[in-house]
Amino acid sequence: MAAAGADSLVLTHLPNIFYLSGFTGSNAILLILGDVMHLFTDGRYTIQAHEEVRQAQVHIVRTSLAEACGGFCRSRSRRKRVRLGFESASLKVAEWTRLKKAAGPGIQWIATTDLIETIREVKSAEELDIMRQAARIASEVVAEASEFVRPGVAELEVAAEIEYRLRRKGASGASFETIVASGPRSALPHAHPTEKLLQKNELVVLDLGAILRHYCSDLTRTVYLGRAPARIRQWYEAVEQAQEAAHDALRAGVTAGSIDRAARRLLHKHGLGSYFVHGTGHGLGIEIHEGPRVGRAQKRRIRAGNVVTLEPGIYVEGVGGIRIEDEVAVHAGGTEVLTTAPRGLLEL
Amino acid sequence: MAAAGADSLVLTHLPNIFYLSGFTGSNAILLILGDVMHLFTDGRYTIQAHEEVRQAQVHIVRTSLAEACGGFCRSRSRRKRVRLGFESASLKVAEWTRLKKAAGPGIQWIATTDLIETIREVKSAEELDIMRQAARIASEVVAEASEFVRPGVAELEVAAEIEYRLRRKGASGASFETIVASGPRSALPHAHPTEKLLQKNELVVLDLGAILRHYCSDLTRTVYLGRAPARIRQWYEAVEQAQEAAHDALRAGVTAGSIDRAARRLLHKHGLGSYFVHGTGHGLGIEIHEGPRVGRAQKRRIRAGNVVTLEPGIYVEGVGGIRIEDEVAVHAGGTEVLTTAPRGLLEL
Repeated sequence: MAAAGADSLVLTHLPNIFYLSGFTGSNAILLILGDVMHLFTDGRYTIQAHEEVRQAQVHIVRTSLAEACGGFCRSRSRRKRVRLGFESASLKVAEWTRLKKAAGPGIQWIATTDLIETIREVKSAEELDIMRQAARIASEVVAEASEFVRPGVAELEVAAEIEYRLRRKGASGASFETIVASGPRSALPHAHPTEKLLQKNELVVLDLGAILRHYCSDLTRTVYLGRAPARIRQWYEAVEQAQEAAHDALRAGVTAGSIDRAARRLLHKHGLGSYFVHGTGHGLGIEIHEGPRVGRAQKRRIRAGNVVTLEPGIYVEGVGGIRIEDEVAVHAGGTEVLTTAPRGLLEL
Repeated sequence: MAAAGADSLVLTHLPNIFYLSGFTGSNAILLILGDVMHLFTDGRYTIQAHEEVRQAQVHIVRTSLAEACGGFCRSRSRRKRVRLGFESASLKVAEWTRLKKAAGPGIQWIATTDLIETIREVKSAEELDIMRQAARIASEVVAEASEFVRPGVAELEVAAEIEYRLRRKGASGASFETIVASGPRSALPHAHPTEKLLQKNELVVLDLGAILRHYCSDLTRTVYLGRAPARIRQWYEAVEQAQEAAHDALRAGVTAGSIDRAARRLLHKHGLGSYFVHGTGHGLGIEIHEGPRVGRAQKRRIRAGNVVTLEPGIYVEGVGGIRIEDEVAVHAGGTEVLTTAPRGLLEL
């Protein structure tokens, strides 16, 4: 906060609000003013806010939260000017307009980015413990794939089965809409599952994750329905090697970009570089996509406590796609793969 | 657009982008410049964008979308000044800063709110048809409650079962995190399901919805595990009557506020007014919460084509809560309840 030139901070990004206050409602502003945190939310959350929030004063608001928060700032900025940081990547223009109007002229507004996100990138032992369990739940479901992935079943049914099993194992939900992409549809990196039936001799990409106690996991495996032809095996091995190269490059102190480039180099060597259309991975935690991003041009350095996915993939339009994704925690002395499902090509 | 004083429009709210272009990816900006729509998205969505988008030119972008879109506007604003509307309730301050920088001085920026949302509030026959099916799926699952709601089962298991059944019936997912709130927890209007086991002689609030072809449904029923005592029955009947009063008040031309007040009046008559801590309902469609809001002070008028929830409830801290929620479509000649599950107190 001091580095950003602010003495106070208004937070609007809900994952940051949860991280600092414990509040899980869907409508909140958190104000850090001096040493005191103030949570503004509405009447739906009266009981819940008092249950969940330990270290902030709770304000139940009947008007808009921005107005209430702004008015509160105004009352506190009478004696001295407040330099109030706000989250420019989260605060909407209209909300900011309301905040500014209600807060009046005694406030100096300072756009900040990633203040809390940067702190969140380094996980505590307690957070890692939850994330380990969330990853295990996803791994267990993937290890059961042979029970529900077979020709004749719709992508949507497989997705339903996956999410049901995640929850039966204790997840509060899926950490994103489960991807079940089969045949040529597996060439869409972010395909929604459809009513398309799985068929023999097709690739199927399964990308899924659990939410456990508000933390996400993320795991991808690619299945072949039948005996995979030689070309598919070669592609699969190339992606596997690309992931290994990324994993070998991953440690505290290196730039995130160098990890991406290690994976990319490997796929280029196999002549598959142009089919790798996204970054190698991303951090995760309370959100499914957090920093550090593991992309080609990322100069930021990996720190102990980071948890990132490594998920190289190739996508050949009209043919299909292959992606292998694991979640890796970075420790001071090495790495720890949190996702434990077998990594080889699964032929069902 | 003309009413807002703009001749062009940059859209950042994804449901609006889907509504106008058909694109379902998670990263996009839609620019309406003159008569032409331009969709900006990233390399992950190359194939998908070309599959889904019919009436817009697709731009696959390697930098930030805001930069690319801004740069494009700059190239088009050389000959004449562009009055560019933007969605102030969706556009983030940081994104706006990037857009403005890339677009240069030839742009006049005009904050707009609810331009597309207002259009979306009036559903077409085709949209209503999808929403009817989405509501039917939710109703069918609730009608099966006796198969999986019973003492000894955890709230989380009930939620898993509900979401599994929604998907087995064709939903692409739940339209929000299913609420299963039992005993004293039912007094939290937006409780997340927990590991708490359902017990005999408890209230259980089930609030759930399906997403079908990108449209949401929303339905709440309250169950009593055992024979409900007289006080619970009286409360339930009061909530039922409040919902009926709201339904009686609902028709094209009335203010949304008058519907809320009809429900509220009824609960006040029973001495329960102070336990009704939220609005009576909300519009829904591509999003689970849309206009028109059915809240006390809403002066906007209901229009034919609106679909709203009517969901009065009472929440008594330490005891429990009761909510009954249905989805009602407003036609020129009357209303149509889309949710077909039985409405009486379900004793299991």
